[in-house]
Amino acid sequence: MAILLLLNQVDPAILEGHLKSHPDCPDVRTYPDTGNVEEIDCVIVWKHDQGLLNEYPNLKLIASYGAGVENILSDPTLPEGVPITRFVDKSLSDQMAEFILAAILNHRVNLTYYREQQAACHWQEKPAIKGNNVTILGLGELGTTAAKLLHKNDYKISGWARSEKNIDGITSYYGENQLFQSVAEADFVVCLLPLTPETREILNSDLFAAMKKGSYLINVGRGDHVNEDDLMNYLSQEHLSGALLDVFSTEPLPRDHPFWQHPKIHVTPHISSPTDKAKLARQILDNYNRLSKGEPLLHLIDRKRSY
Amino acid sequence: MAILLLLNQVDPAILEGHLKSHPDCPDVRTYPDTGNVEEIDCVIVWKHDQGLLNEYPNLKLIASYGAGVENILSDPTLPEGVPITRFVDKSLSDQMAEFILAAILNHRVNLTYYREQQAACHWQEKPAIKGNNVTILGLGELGTTAAKLLHKNDYKISGWARSEKNIDGITSYYGENQLFQSVAEADFVVCLLPLTPETREILNSDLFAAMKKGSYLINVGRGDHVNEDDLMNYLSQEHLSGALLDVFSTEPLPRDHPFWQHPKIHVTPHISSPTDKAKLARQILDNYNRLSKGEPLLHLIDRKRSY
Repeated sequence: MAILLLLNQVDPAILEGHLKSHPDCPDVRTYPDTGNVEEIDCVIVWKHDQGLLNEYPNLKLIASYGAGVENILSDPTLPEGVPITRFVDKSLSDQMAEFILAAILNHRVNLTYYREQQAACHWQEKPAIKGNNVTILGLGELGTTAAKLLHKNDYKISGWARSEKNIDGITSYYGENQLFQSVAEADFVVCLLPLTPETREILNSDLFAAMKKGSYLINVGRGDHVNEDDLMNYLSQEHLSGALLDVFSTEPLPRDHPFWQHPKIHVTPHISSPTDKAKLARQILDNYNRLSKGEPLLHLIDRKRSY
Repeated sequence: MAILLLLNQVDPAILEGHLKSHPDCPDVRTYPDTGNVEEIDCVIVWKHDQGLLNEYPNLKLIASYGAGVENILSDPTLPEGVPITRFVDKSLSDQMAEFILAAILNHRVNLTYYREQQAACHWQEKPAIKGNNVTILGLGELGTTAAKLLHKNDYKISGWARSEKNIDGITSYYGENQLFQSVAEADFVVCLLPLTPETREILNSDLFAAMKKGSYLINVGRGDHVNEDDLMNYLSQEHLSGALLDVFSTEPLPRDHPFWQHPKIHVTPHISSPTDKAKLARQILDNYNRLSKGEPLLHLIDRKRSY
């Protein structure tokens, strides 16, 4: 049997190398060099071309290359009943939390602003931002880790999720009804939601209007969480003071995209939680072995909830 | 009697307003509108023109506008026996600590780097810096607060000071003999020393050579702690990966200074610990009243130690 890599926008050779470094690794193939489709019992998937998933009659495992699985779930050819797993990495949560703290501090003390002034030899103080209310949309593994780090640094944290959460020191909002309330007092709103039909373009005019004037948006969820026109409007009206965006609907962000040259948008190239390929390879092979022994899989997706 | 403001490089009107808002405030004058010099019993001093301090025969208190007092102590006309106080502000320590954490995180996750790439529509990941060893030169109020904040955020902290310190979780180095050892393992070196004859240009080739390749310098002490030529050399040799400088020998930094256009130097306009003028006014008037009642003064300088 064989593992097939169905990866777009990432280099499959690095993961392949890590997989093959394990003695118990089966044959690894990279699409489109699939060979006999009947031999494929596991696919590793990232931003794959839709419409391929029902081509493997003996498929037993669909493993996401990353934490998100929206591209898998939205594929109309996704076979029923095949388990889907995602990549869970505690150090990835820590890196994400650090990135969010860095983004907040950078805006609070205006570090990037001063660097831009520096090019013009400009010596001018800009008052630091005093507000320390942060709302985190999404309180899964990543959101909870970020909330805890920020709480430890004396930020006042609110979180919003599908259901009520009980996390020490964090005010829990939940359900559609409490979304706008959750962001009303925030100086910083951080999106760490999974991308589902309900959360697509959740960062839109209605949400921005519910945020207070001068607040700052950090999107480290998915590009499709943002309605781009609405964001540009609320930035140009100066209702939002700025935005740091690490994820985009199309990645890499196209060269002609207006975000690149926007003075209030800080673009980072999807680096808030870089995948540790060695760890990913171990996690997938572990599940692959569990499958052969009939043991329960780790990090399984609930298809109904979409994450 | 009267208070005289001897302030350069800051606006005296703001402090004057805060002083006069207190009902027990005596007459406040601003140099050179001194009036009768015999009426001056307190001067508030910041980067004053040297040579003025012995002109007030009834002077009883010299209050520094900021935390540093080097400009007062280096004045040859400084009268013997007049107490010198400095401004101590716990929230200023917190702000300084936050600024240092921001500077470290900004370098670790390359936020400013990405912002510079953004201007060229460049989508390219730069690996985050993994090292988390920080050495803080100077473990006074500011250094200790910064050390504690960084320790709470899981950095490994060493500190260097004149004498041995016992601070939970922080490796203490002390005395001239241990200076180079204190920075040998550091990924980040933060200068928070007072400026004294011993610490002037302490950030020089010898210290940089003792730092490891790729380490990063943050100077939030005084501009005169840095030997500027040595710093430029060690940056161009790529021994140091960069520097954030918030303080300079001449402030504002002159327009023709090479630091402005240096790609590896991040210039901020002395904003790491902005003086809270309302609090400064209260602290000085408190000491002024203590003086009249013969009570001990707060935040007195030890002239022998220079801080």
